[in-house]
Amino acid sequence: MASAVLEVSLTAAGVVRGTAQVERLGDLKLGKQIGFKSVQMGGLKLAVPRPLRSRRKNLGRISIFFFFFFFQDPLKRAVAKKAVELVKDIQAVATSYQARVLARQFGVKTVDLNDVNVIDIAFDGADEVDGQMNVIKGGGTAHTMEKVVNTMAKKTVLLVDQSKVVPQLGLTFPVPVEVLPFAISPVLRSLVDLGGEPEIRVALRKDGPVITDLGNMVVDVRFPGGIKDPAELERHINMIPGVVENGLFIGIVQTVLVATKDAEETLIIDLADYVKNMQSAKEDEEKNSS
Amino acid sequence: MASAVLEVSLTAAGVVRGTAQVERLGDLKLGKQIGFKSVQMGGLKLAVPRPLRSRRKNLGRISIFFFFFFFQDPLKRAVAKKAVELVKDIQAVATSYQARVLARQFGVKTVDLNDVNVIDIAFDGADEVDGQMNVIKGGGTAHTMEKVVNTMAKKTVLLVDQSKVVPQLGLTFPVPVEVLPFAISPVLRSLVDLGGEPEIRVALRKDGPVITDLGNMVVDVRFPGGIKDPAELERHINMIPGVVENGLFIGIVQTVLVATKDAEETLIIDLADYVKNMQSAKEDEEKNSS
Repeated sequence: MASAVLEVSLTAAGVVRGTAQVERLGDLKLGKQIGFKSVQMGGLKLAVPRPLRSRRKNLGRISIFFFFFFFQDPLKRAVAKKAVELVKDIQAVATSYQARVLARQFGVKTVDLNDVNVIDIAFDGADEVDGQMNVIKGGGTAHTMEKVVNTMAKKTVLLVDQSKVVPQLGLTFPVPVEVLPFAISPVLRSLVDLGGEPEIRVALRKDGPVITDLGNMVVDVRFPGGIKDPAELERHINMIPGVVENGLFIGIVQTVLVATKDAEETLIIDLADYVKNMQSAKEDEEKNSS
Repeated sequence: MASAVLEVSLTAAGVVRGTAQVERLGDLKLGKQIGFKSVQMGGLKLAVPRPLRSRRKNLGRISIFFFFFFFQDPLKRAVAKKAVELVKDIQAVATSYQARVLARQFGVKTVDLNDVNVIDIAFDGADEVDGQMNVIKGGGTAHTMEKVVNTMAKKTVLLVDQSKVVPQLGLTFPVPVEVLPFAISPVLRSLVDLGGEPEIRVALRKDGPVITDLGNMVVDVRFPGGIKDPAELERHINMIPGVVENGLFIGIVQTVLVATKDAEETLIIDLADYVKNMQSAKEDEEKNSS
């Protein structure tokens, strides 16, 4: 295989908030065990997958990995850009206008989704993820395209920081629902019938509602008390005529990597390990307090 | 109640084939038993609901009925137009660009779906309907808007001729699926995974695919051997990311009126009666042949 097709997903939120979520393409082979270790880079501890470090000369393979940095430092961005430039033979499918532009800025060639038959791996962020890898996405309104690409990908890897991991979906974030504008009123009523509190997302720097890259509106639906059965809710919302797609991703993600901050060190660990750590920490706390 | 909101649904197919499917608004009150009787009009037997004939002076009520004629006769069209003009205080929600234009031609005021809270009654046609009032629609690509409106309506009445009534859905007609253009390839693959034979609908008088009023593409999906479980298939198709809506209407229609031709007379009867008649006719035939 001469090239791999990868998803590029960069949230609009990242840039709006003055933070950047940057892909860096390295030498992590598909199907390989993913091992991360933190390294020093420009004063910032970054998690880097082991295969990259051990096979540094082998860049240009069908491979990718991500890291995040949460401030705007030209030095670090330059390093990241350089890393991306080292990688050849990668085609990326962008899930939004912004992702396409950013991918090009970092030297990653983007292709039309309809021109590829296979996506080897998709990397994505999330608004919330629970211990069963159920996800809420759509803060940046690209969730419809992301759902198409993630579902098509052989493997979808979610990259989140620890603030996104929740015991139950929907306690903090609403579920974003992409809706055909002509049907907005009946859809709002149907979402209320499902027990939701829907609100049309209002745009900034534009009068009226946010319009997605696909020309639709976004309704953020709060479910008081959280979401009891995410799979059922996903189905119910998608069966409302006029709904294009909703931000509940159930059974789509295969791996969740959680970036955690331990003292000064940033570590990236698997969701299952993170949840286990949290539980034992909680048990320890309860033991100590009793 | 000063006015009722009604759906206007006129299939594109009707006009393309040189046939017209014309609404005629009369005095059929909602909730009333629908009784039809054929009358002579311009040389054509037409089915007319009884309430209209008995309360002819009371036109202008919140009321509607349909009839069909299957050739282009200016006389008959003029009569139909006159009938529509007699009716006041009706607001119609059109489910397609063409329906809106035609409604205006016939003097029916159309309103935006989002400006109404209630639709009293929706009238619609179909490509196929089975004995359980499961329906395939979408020959004219307006099925997404029709599904929104029919679902919202307090009552949906389907008007078909006898050729549309089938023992099992999908033996003749494919299921039309409205798809976001960016996702057409992965959706095609997912439809094959569901056992379908998908085909992108190709336009006439335009190069390439048909584009719907909503800016999407239409995939016609054949299911060899017919559709075993229409409700399940509707769900499965709608859960494919990239699908906007599909043409299976399950649990949406409350009444199906079937236009039948008996010798020279056109009769309109309820679906249940039609199915019963068909069954006893079949049993008689079997008895006679044995």
